Amino acid sequence: MKQLNFAGVFPYLVSPVDSRGAVKEKVLTNLVRHLIDSGVHGLTPLGSTGEFAYLTAGQRSTVVRVVIEAAAGRVPVVAGVCHASTAVACRQAVEYEKLGANGILAILDTYFPLGPDQIYSYFSAIAGSVRLPVVVYNNPTFSKFDLGVDLIERLADVPNIRYLKDASGKTGKLLTIANRLGDRIKLFSASASVPLFVMMLGGVGWMAGPACIIPRQSVCLYELAVEKRWDEALKLQKASWEVNRVFQKYGLAACIKAGLALQGFPVGDPLPPQTPLDEAGLLEVKQVLASLE
Amino acid sequence: MKQLNFAGVFPYLVSPVDSRGAVKEKVLTNLVRHLIDSGVHGLTPLGSTGEFAYLTAGQRSTVVRVVIEAAAGRVPVVAGVCHASTAVACRQAVEYEKLGANGILAILDTYFPLGPDQIYSYFSAIAGSVRLPVVVYNNPTFSKFDLGVDLIERLADVPNIRYLKDASGKTGKLLTIANRLGDRIKLFSASASVPLFVMMLGGVGWMAGPACIIPRQSVCLYELAVEKRWDEALKLQKASWEVNRVFQKYGLAACIKAGLALQGFPVGDPLPPQTPLDEAGLLEVKQVLASLE
Amino acid sequence: MKQLNFAGVFPYLVSPVDSRGAVKEKVLTNLVRHLIDSGVHGLTPLGSTGEFAYLTAGQRSTVVRVVIEAAAGRVPVVAGVCHASTAVACRQAVEYEKLGANGILAILDTYFPLGPDQIYSYFSAIAGSVRLPVVVYNNPTFSKFDLGVDLIERLADVPNIRYLKDASGKTGKLLTIANRLGDRIKLFSASASVPLFVMMLGGVGWMAGPACIIPRQSVCLYELAVEKRWDEALKLQKASWEVNRVFQKYGLAACIKAGLALQGFPVGDPLPPQTPLDEAGLLEVKQVLASLE
Amino acid sequence: MKQLNFAGVFPYLVSPVDSRGAVKEKVLTNLVRHLIDSGVHGLTPLGSTGEFAYLTAGQRSTVVRVVIEAAAGRVPVVAGVCHASTAVACRQAVEYEKLGANGILAILDTYFPLGPDQIYSYFSAIAGSVRLPVVVYNNPTFSKFDLGVDLIERLADVPNIRYLKDASGKTGKLLTIANRLGDRIKLFSASASVPLFVMMLGGVGWMAGPACIIPRQSVCLYELAVEKRWDEALKLQKASWEVNRVFQKYGLAACIKAGLALQGFPVGDPLPPQTPLDEAGLLEVKQVLASLE
Repeated sequence: MKQLNFAGVFPYLVSPVDSRGAVKEKVLTNLVRHLIDSGVHGLTPLGSTGEFAYLTAGQRSTVVRVVIEAAAGRVPVVAGVCHASTAVACRQAVEYEKLGANGILAILDTYFPLGPDQIYSYFSAIAGSVRLPVVVYNNPTFSKFDLGVDLIERLADVPNIRYLKDASGKTGKLLTIANRLGDRIKLFSASASVPLFVMMLGGVGWMAGPACIIPRQSVCLYELAVEKRWDEALKLQKASWEVNRVFQKYGLAACIKAGLALQGFPVGDPLPPQTPLDEAGLLEVKQVLASLE
Repeated sequence: MKQLNFAGVFPYLVSPVDSRGAVKEKVLTNLVRHLIDSGVHGLTPLGSTGEFAYLTAGQRSTVVRVVIEAAAGRVPVVAGVCHASTAVACRQAVEYEKLGANGILAILDTYFPLGPDQIYSYFSAIAGSVRLPVVVYNNPTFSKFDLGVDLIERLADVPNIRYLKDASGKTGKLLTIANRLGDRIKLFSASASVPLFVMMLGGVGWMAGPACIIPRQSVCLYELAVEKRWDEALKLQKASWEVNRVFQKYGLAACIKAGLALQGFPVGDPLPPQTPLDEAGLLEVKQVLASLE
Repeated sequence: MKQLNFAGVFPYLVSPVDSRGAVKEKVLTNLVRHLIDSGVHGLTPLGSTGEFAYLTAGQRSTVVRVVIEAAAGRVPVVAGVCHASTAVACRQAVEYEKLGANGILAILDTYFPLGPDQIYSYFSAIAGSVRLPVVVYNNPTFSKFDLGVDLIERLADVPNIRYLKDASGKTGKLLTIANRLGDRIKLFSASASVPLFVMMLGGVGWMAGPACIIPRQSVCLYELAVEKRWDEALKLQKASWEVNRVFQKYGLAACIKAGLALQGFPVGDPLPPQTPLDEAGLLEVKQVLASLE
Repeated sequence: MKQLNFAGVFPYLVSPVDSRGAVKEKVLTNLVRHLIDSGVHGLTPLGSTGEFAYLTAGQRSTVVRVVIEAAAGRVPVVAGVCHASTAVACRQAVEYEKLGANGILAILDTYFPLGPDQIYSYFSAIAGSVRLPVVVYNNPTFSKFDLGVDLIERLADVPNIRYLKDASGKTGKLLTIANRLGDRIKLFSASASVPLFVMMLGGVGWMAGPACIIPRQSVCLYELAVEKRWDEALKLQKASWEVNRVFQKYGLAACIKAGLALQGFPVGDPLPPQTPLDEAGLLEVKQVLASLE
């Protein structure tokens, strides 16, 4: 695999952890193989769906290692790094590069508020610590900052910062970025921004949790978009959006983990203090999955 | 004009007011005629671009009356009502109906926080006070609430609440509404939600300030969308989006009023304490307008 | 009454309006006399408890006129002005000065976001339009801005801006202001900031809704504070705080209006779409009032 | 030391870490001895000032161990635990208990939003994992939740949850809690809530960063409060508040670390991507410290 350009559907993998804290390696391996067999174009362990914030450093490393081994070079693996400390995040990135990751998804979880220069220093330091392509992650819903377009432009000038994943759900912002930066940074959609529309704006794909439970439909949607078959794509986008609606209602990790369990992957519950889906949520996940078969 | 169904491009009209507080009736009349001549499908006085919050009750009435007279039945006029008090908002609606408005855009500006039942009572009371079709306006950026989908569904059951204008900028939310409510409520886009995409989701048009300064381009975009010529539409959407980007940077009323002045409509400055565009802003408005010719 | 310096307990008066929109002048007159007889040091019609945002311009004028007439010069009347438009707010201030108000409480209700210079221009224009002392009102909970200390310092340099009423509930911020500005601006507490503590920091009193229903207790607390009898004051502050707790739970206007009705002042319900207290709220108001007898 | 009841001034210790990531044990030891010699009543490693979010698990353990060894039983050590995962936080608590901590400060750093039951489960699980007294920490400024009074009451019923440290800066909220819960939970103030006032409300002391750089003044303020010498206490509170003002302006860890460096404790800079004080900030810290000598 000589792939340097990431494009397509990259599921945000869940992190299956048993009650004693051990990563369920076999389950994760099976899931990875299943997703690749279903046609996904890459894999992203330790994204938000991967509950990275709930894992120890050791659990994170294990998850990344297992995913890389199971992927076996068939698709690129873009591993998530996240910490409040620049130094710790860089060490994660270096470690995951050594483990064989093909790219880094750089996430910032600050405690004290940061200014643009400080945010820039975090992301550029991670990029500087590895030779891999870096995806910068912006998620104003769950973090304490929202990358502005000026700052994104500065980050785009860092040589190996080549992608932006924006989870703001504000499709218009991605249009502003596409108009201003063109090919200087490539856009990955989140679920919340309606992936089809981000594709229409020149996006290269999406990184999101729902692709774990509807991988074939996601790949099909991607291919319709690439072929500019907009009317068919729109129909599929509208149907598959229901997965997004359900997880916004019941919680991301809870829904994706429940859906995978229904599909024969015993990935376990979301990590406490998160709680598993209640019956109503479980029923709704079932119904949505059935409607998409 | 027997039009009962609103569809297409409805510019949010500015409110030209001179330094002594008089509505500049002639300027407003000229603007209305120009926009109709440019092909817009309707007109909305007293939307956000209309600076309703900065006007007295008398100024608001004058604006609505002048627009209705100038429109002369050529296109429907959907007048904005807004108050914290249900009773006052209903009186505005009744008055504008008597003046000849063809629809009501219902806006809620609360001071104390409200629960869903209270918000429902406000909008349904306005609808109950007139026989006109009502457009419910949701703008979480500038108000203290964000209409949830459950509440929108309740409002959709009020017979003459037939449209929703959502300015959240969250295109995905509109997809959720479209999937759940279908034809039970029709969607108007705001600028911020990328009008083309709302059209793709089944929306019927958009109500927004930028259509004041790029009416022909807006109508063209609408027609391309209706004809499902998505690729051409997308190109025009991306180009015309720059108007949206500029007003998000410099302020809505300031940009639209400055643009209209450049086009020969001396509508004056935004109402204090708002301030007119500075030179950088004026230059950027000029450039964007030139690029769209 | 030659009073130029405001100090002490200024109840934020409710606005009694009947179902047809008429101000209940007799009820308001009786309430004003009762409060003065109970020892309050001033009166503030059209503060937040006065539901100014829910009133028409005419209703506001009537409320101010009735309060001034009923006060009959026995205590100063500081009338609230509020609008998004500088010009309209100034006209309100000029009108209330002509009606005989002794001071102006300046409130800003913006729709579009404002920068510090624009906020400054609003408050200083109001001050410049009258010869009365002006109280600047800061309430970040219900408005779209929070006056910073730098801006407060600029405002303190306007000759007749002599007071600040801060409702942020952040007592520490008032300590910062007191340390930095000393006597350059005098502080009125809100309920939320614990009036006794603001007095300890050099504050001159408080303007708040609860003083409508516990006027004697409020005056007693003020006097204990002036006499630096801190331990007794603290005991009374802790007891009377329960009124604050209840209205934070059930809504300000609803609680104060319900409490006044219980005390024989039929001021009516909060203005729709606000709703009156439910039974649980009414019971809690009764209990708190009984506990403070 | 048989102390079971925590009371008084507990500095939130900084975490001195060198550029290679090693905890500067000697500097930390010297600081601990200095603070105890200055009269502080306890020590809290890994509070917000301790930059816990920026440290690895190993660095955190080292900090706690060094503080406990340096304190040598002269004052109680209440160690901060914090994670998004309940299981990881419990393991931290168990480890710090084994290291000899005398209490646990329980902090919750969630990524996904949590409901009250989930928040309760986190704090009660930590309490259940140790035999030490637990201080629950609420800091709505830096976290994604704000503990309501109902939830605080539930937590107060957990046997070894005996203290609440609330950093909301809303003194009034602490009065509500004091009125409702009385002795069922003891209150520690943060800097932001004006420690003297929390003492007046029945608080038992404060946990805060500034006590690192003004330990004697803090202890003096505490003693004046205990002796109910309110006027003298108020004077000292107003003067020492300036430390709070400065760190709110320039950042907490940056100010406290800079102040300690000025006092002869080379604790280093705040951890990147945080940045050290600029010259203006450094000058202001110097001035404030000089004014408090």
